[in-house]
Formats: sequence, C-alpha cells, structure tokens
Amino acid sequence: MGELMVNLGERSYMIVIGHNMLDTIGEQINPDRYSPKTALVTNPTVYRLYGSKVKDSLQKAGFEVTEVIIPDGEEYKDFAWAYYILSRMLSAGLDRKSVVFALGGGVVGDITGFAASVYMRGIDYVQIPTTLLSQVDSSVGGKTGVNHPLGKNMIGTFYQPVLVWIDVDTLKTLPHREFLAGMAEVIKYGVIWDREFFYFLKRNREKILSQEPDVLEQMIKRCCEIKAEVVSRDEREAGLRAILNYGHTIGHAIETLTGYTRYLHGEAVSMGMLLEAELARLEGLLSKEEVEELRELLQGYGMPVAPENRLSSEEMLKAMQIDKKAVAGKMRFVLPEKIGNVRITSEITNNNILKVLDKLQSF
Amino acid sequence: MGELMVNLGERSYMIVIGHNMLDTIGEQINPDRYSPKTALVTNPTVYRLYGSKVKDSLQKAGFEVTEVIIPDGEEYKDFAWAYYILSRMLSAGLDRKSVVFALGGGVVGDITGFAASVYMRGIDYVQIPTTLLSQVDSSVGGKTGVNHPLGKNMIGTFYQPVLVWIDVDTLKTLPHREFLAGMAEVIKYGVIWDREFFYFLKRNREKILSQEPDVLEQMIKRCCEIKAEVVSRDEREAGLRAILNYGHTIGHAIETLTGYTRYLHGEAVSMGMLLEAELARLEGLLSKEEVEELRELLQGYGMPVAPENRLSSEEMLKAMQIDKKAVAGKMRFVLPEKIGNVRITSEITNNNILKVLDKLQSF
Repeated sequence: MGELMVNLGERSYMIVIGHNMLDTIGEQINPDRYSPKTALVTNPTVYRLYGSKVKDSLQKAGFEVTEVIIPDGEEYKDFAWAYYILSRMLSAGLDRKSVVFALGGGVVGDITGFAASVYMRGIDYVQIPTTLLSQVDSSVGGKTGVNHPLGKNMIGTFYQPVLVWIDVDTLKTLPHREFLAGMAEVIKYGVIWDREFFYFLKRNREKILSQEPDVLEQMIKRCCEIKAEVVSRDEREAGLRAILNYGHTIGHAIETLTGYTRYLHGEAVSMGMLLEAELARLEGLLSKEEVEELRELLQGYGMPVAPENRLSSEEMLKAMQIDKKAVAGKMRFVLPEKIGNVRITSEITNNNILKVLDKLQSF
Repeated sequence: MGELMVNLGERSYMIVIGHNMLDTIGEQINPDRYSPKTALVTNPTVYRLYGSKVKDSLQKAGFEVTEVIIPDGEEYKDFAWAYYILSRMLSAGLDRKSVVFALGGGVVGDITGFAASVYMRGIDYVQIPTTLLSQVDSSVGGKTGVNHPLGKNMIGTFYQPVLVWIDVDTLKTLPHREFLAGMAEVIKYGVIWDREFFYFLKRNREKILSQEPDVLEQMIKRCCEIKAEVVSRDEREAGLRAILNYGHTIGHAIETLTGYTRYLHGEAVSMGMLLEAELARLEGLLSKEEVEELRELLQGYGMPVAPENRLSSEEMLKAMQIDKKAVAGKMRFVLPEKIGNVRITSEITNNNILKVLDKLQSF
C-alpha cells in the first residue's frame, strides 16, 4: 500500500493506493468530523460490482448512506444530472457537515466533486476512483466539472477532495478498452515530466497489460506523484499546471466533434498527444525519432493514433478556439521538446495547426 | 465618495460607495488584465433604467458587451437561469480571462456570482448593486447562490467579486417597499454589532426615508464596513460570520413557507429579527424594553413584524431544520443579548421555538 500527500496548505489531502481495501473506506473517515447522513454517488455498473462493499463499510462506520445512481457515460456528465445529485442530497437531508463519496470513473468523480463544491456552498467529498483514467488523472487535482453542448468541462470548480482511495483491484472488472484508454494519460506523465517513467512503461508493457498488482500500484503511484507535484505548485492553473493538458487541446476538439461518444477520453488524448507531438516536430522542437517512439508506445498499448473518419480541420480549429484553455481566441499548446520535457506556447500559427490536422487525418 | 477594502488575502477587493458614478465603471477595470469579451447580467427593469449607461461606459473602455437579461424576482434565482447565463456566456465566447458584471439587486448579484464562480472553473466578476438590500448585504462577502425547491440558496459557492461599485443614486428609482425592506438588513447591523449605529438610524429616520445622499452614503458605508469586518475574520462561515444570519433562521422559514413570493427578503428578515429577539427574551438574554425598541424601529421604517396569515409552527420548524445553517438537524440561532451584541447558540429547545412562533403569529 502506498500513500502520498498532495500539499495545498489547508486544502491538503492524502491519496492512498493499494489493493483489496474497498471494504475499509468507512474506517478512514473520522465520524466526529461529519454528520451521519452521507451520499454515495455511483453508476449502475460500478454499483453492482462494488456498491454494497463500500456501502456496508460506511454503514459499519455509522453513516446513513443514500445511494445516488447516475447513468454511465460522458454524455450524462451535464448540468441536469448535477442538479439531480444535488436534489437527492437535499431530499436525503445532507447538511453542511456532511461528506459525500464518489465511487466510479471520471464522470462520477467530476460531477460529484462539482455537486459537493456547490452544495450549501461546499461540503467535503471523497474520491474512490475505479477506472485507470480516474485513478491517475481526474481524481487528483481538484478539477470538478460538467460538460455543456458548447464544450467539455465548461462548467465546474477547483475543489479538492479530502481523501482519494485507490484500490487497483477495481481495474480487474474494467473493460479492456477502458484500461487501455487510461494508459494514454499514464504515458502522458512520461512525456511531460519523467523520461525514465516513459521507458519504465516501455519495459513493463506485458506486466502492465496483464495487470500485475505490484507494477500497477507502482505505476499509478508515480502518476499521482507527478500530478500532485504539478498541482501543488500551481493549483489554479496559472502556469505550470497547463502542462497536464498535453494532448488535450486537440483531444478535446476530437471529442467535441464526435459528440463525446465515438472515443473514450483517453483515446482522444492519445490521438491528441501524437498530433501535438507532430506539431512540436513541425515547430522544430521534437525529433522525428521521438515522435516515432511515442507512436510506438501508444500503439503498443493498443491505442488509436488518428481518427478513423476524417474530421474537418476547420471545425477542429473552431472547437479548439472555444476551448476554455484558449484566451481571447488564442490557443495555448503544450509541446514536447524531448520525451520527459515540455514547453507551453501560444505562438503557433493556425496554418501550422491546420497542416498537422490535415496531415494526420490522412493516416 | 467612500471606499473600503475587504481584506481577504489574495481575494481582497474594494467597495466604492458614491453617487452619479455608474457611467465611470468602465474606467475602473484594467483592460490589460481581461479579455475584451464581457457579459453584463441584469434584469429588464434595471436594464431599462441603467443598462445603456453601464454598457456605454464598458464599451468606451474597450469591452465587447453581451447583455444577458434574466427575469426579475427571487423565483427566477434558480439552477435553470444560472444555466441560461452560463450558456449565453459560452455562446458569446467569454474565456477564462473574461470578467462579468452584475447590475441589479440580490437576485442578479447572487446568480451572476454563482455563474462566474463555475464558468470555466471560475472567472472574475464585478458587483454593481442597485437595491438597498444588495448594497448593504448580498454584494459584500462573496456568498453566491441559487434557490432550490427544497430551500433558499442551497446551491452556491463562496466566491469574492473583484470590485463592488455602489451608486446610491440608483435607490431613487427603487420601489419604496423595496427600499424599506432593505432597511431591515441595515437595522440588523445595529443589533448585531453597533449600538451607536442603531441609534443613528433612529435619529436620522426622516433623512434616510427622504434619501438624503450624504446620510445614505454614510449609512451604507457603515453597513459594508461591518459586513467586511465580519467576513474578513471568517470568510467561510466557520464561526463569527454566522452572526450575519440574525433574523434569517426564522426569516428563511417564512420565505420557504410563503413560496418566496409573498414577502420581500428584507420583510421576512424583519419578522425573523423580531421573532428571534422574542426568543432571546424568552431565554432570558434580552430585556423586554430592548425588544420593544427594536419593534419600534422596524415599524418606524414601515416594516412588517409578523406575518399577516398564520403559518403552521410545525411546518416553520421543519423548514428551519432543513435550512443549511442547521447541522445534523440542530438549529443554530443568533440571539441578541443587548442591542449591539449577539451570541450564537444551538441550545434552544424546539419547545421554546414553537412557543415563540405560536405567540407571535397571533399578533
């Protein structure tokens, strides 16, 4: 079992990574600190698999648990479902001293974090991420949010959980495609921060794909460490934190144009990473060899590196300009200079971007 | 013109109080700090009166202004209208570096503050309050929010504006009933914090009722000072800040039971203050004489001190227990010990509360 602290002053919190520990979550929460009424937000699939384990543990610790089940899928991460969660919390009588639990992937985590952040102007919440993507990414860093027809995560808050409880055993029941999609964000940490980790992922491909618990724990812990380090230095994304968006400027545009349904987030990020690496090459930052190394690693983990159907480059560009990472219509890109190191720039011309978008769509 | 600073570290901001200054708001905003696209949120009445003044000033300062007009009334301060504002901001292309302006009363201020706090995880906003209530209360302190069928302000955030711009001239066009309702919160500051101010309000009743600008500026400034002082010491309502809720525990229950439409907020607070003063007397805290002084001052400003129609005491109690100020079903009351001084207590029995509710409803 590994632990790490995300240092954010009075908003600091602990991430715990281990296995076979879902049924001990109740013991982690100090009952004196909270009102007895709590909500457990999850989706039908995760609920069937792990709902009763978590619920029993919370009940044993003295909580009255209201289950709030929201449908599974990025398309339900919206304002209306956030309102549903808030309404259920109100009906159940949760108060300002209540804590809520998010059990599931990024959708459940993001929307529950958002609901917690605006419920009676903010109550505590605990993340219990059950997908690889949410374990290495969305449960760390306090970005909460829901989508809007005009863009992903356009509505949300910066709001830290009080605890992140990661049980790698939950990955056993995760569909293989989702596990692979999660690897996109894992590989991202190698590219933006830790060259050694990139090669660790290359060397341990088979162990990771067969989900050896020790290797998984080590891998997930390293991702959380990197993210925690970045977030601690820049909680509200004034500067450094933007490097976590590597692959996401183009990735989000792909998701927007395909209605959030065709690709999993990680798959879109995989394509985004390679396209942005190509852009870096075009800008003379990254070598052709390293672009190829990245392509190989992504493909080695079974990930797509280009969309199957042509997407209009013009529409991609438009979607990127409305993205909330853009400022006054000017896009910012995170471009690798070498594997393990990136720079942030908004000095890329639309022409070069279009060139990359055009080029790669003909793959 | 008076100024004061609300000291909240990096979230500190300035409140400016004066007259004839709506058309200079644009000059107050540093154009280098913000994207050119901005939104001006207001309601139809205020828009007709002051919309173009503010808009012209912002345009002169280089902003592209999108007008967002929401209907007037507490019943529209809800999640759906917040979504409308967010959608308009997105369509207009506001980005993370945009600033939005709330021009109107508490409804416009609260919902715009909420929208700003969750738009792309939080952008800056400016309050331009145009009602007495919002000038002395809701625009200071960073409480944002919307109502829910199960309770007032149940959804919201703590999120500070970057500037509060108070022009007392706007009170000239305020319906007299609303001006009087605002006086409830003004009187509240006297009761909870400043005995001298209570008597200032008694002495200057005629000047205040005839809206002499100098007296109004002085009065509003003192209210903002007191609120700023309290909020600076306790931004997130851990302790002291709760004293601002004097009159609100019962007041909110009255609003809930009458569907937010029968009474203006200040009117409900007026009744709440007197009922809670009676409760304080019953608990042996406040003298009968001071309760009478309070009643006289409230009535002197034309405010109701008891509901016209009987409200069920049992239902009042239920509404008070679901209120977000309650913790684990236990209500907290702010009770005056004398005019100018209050204490916070949750040691009041339901019996005593019912006794007060019963007694005063027969007035």
